[in-house]
Amino acid sequence: MDDGPKPLAHLEPLGDATQFSPQLHALIPRCALLEHLSPSEVRLLAHFMKVYRADAGVELLREDDAGDFMLMLIEGQVEVRKRDRAGEPRAIALIEPGRTLGEMSMIDGAPRFATCVAVAPTLVAALDRENLARIIVEQPMLGAKILMELVLMLSQSLRRTSERLLGAYEDWTAGTPGAL
Amino acid sequence: MDDGPKPLAHLEPLGDATQFSPQLHALIPRCALLEHLSPSEVRLLAHFMKVYRADAGVELLREDDAGDFMLMLIEGQVEVRKRDRAGEPRAIALIEPGRTLGEMSMIDGAPRFATCVAVAPTLVAALDRENLARIIVEQPMLGAKILMELVLMLSQSLRRTSERLLGAYEDWTAGTPGAL
Repeated sequence: MDDGPKPLAHLEPLGDATQFSPQLHALIPRCALLEHLSPSEVRLLAHFMKVYRADAGVELLREDDAGDFMLMLIEGQVEVRKRDRAGEPRAIALIEPGRTLGEMSMIDGAPRFATCVAVAPTLVAALDRENLARIIVEQPMLGAKILMELVLMLSQSLRRTSERLLGAYEDWTAGTPGAL
Repeated sequence: MDDGPKPLAHLEPLGDATQFSPQLHALIPRCALLEHLSPSEVRLLAHFMKVYRADAGVELLREDDAGDFMLMLIEGQVEVRKRDRAGEPRAIALIEPGRTLGEMSMIDGAPRFATCVAVAPTLVAALDRENLARIIVEQPMLGAKILMELVLMLSQSLRRTSERLLGAYEDWTAGTPGAL
């Protein structure tokens, strides 16, 4: 068994996610990644994920860092912060259990888009690219379901963000403030 | 053999994409969907896609329509138009061969985000959700590769769009015009 993603070495490792089956099952209805999986598929996926605990104030992901894993928030609350052009961190989202973080870097290997900080005692399950590849090879149907959910999540985020971008542009050309 | 997606019934059907292997192979280096596929995987995928010809001025996808297929542009040029709040169509992108259109609706079944109009004589290859599901079941590794490419494409679009949204917001708060 490997030790999990290196950038998470500052967190408290709690072993693989199979020990957290009750929490994962409770998460299914509010987790886009899990909602179309059967209980047995969630158990299978749990074998490929590692759980960590972080206290309030601890950074889980840092903007511009490398990182090839995503995190699923099991318990707690996470603030997403992105630096503006002046370099000042700006809170852009507050993430609740069931949501995932960092899936873009897991897939494309590009630097982290934003910083994610636990703002309450938090449990996360990490899935890295190597384990996603193992799932695809060893459990192709589960792999396809997970990839399909990722496509769905990204697609919906892209729709929302594109709508907001076009709305912001229209507000700007109309000279009226647009709430992001 | 089915007749392909109904919303494409106004286009000239040219049969399945296996007859267009030379064009598809030429597309590999500039097509995000194909670039990590081997020539034999591209041939395999071609069995599941149908090719259509459209003259300049013909609508390929219409904003808000239902539609469960994506299009890969093989030849020609396509303008993407989205209605602003006043209902006026606004050109938001010009698409060259190798690019794909409509992948969000193929995956999530939500209405089309924008209208796509051929602005030159155009060849497109269509892949619908049913055939994507068949690929996943019949050719799981090819299915996983295609889903992975879709995740990658959407992830990169989401990064770009999010950066532009945050930039537009900063420009607005700074009172300076931002070029979208």
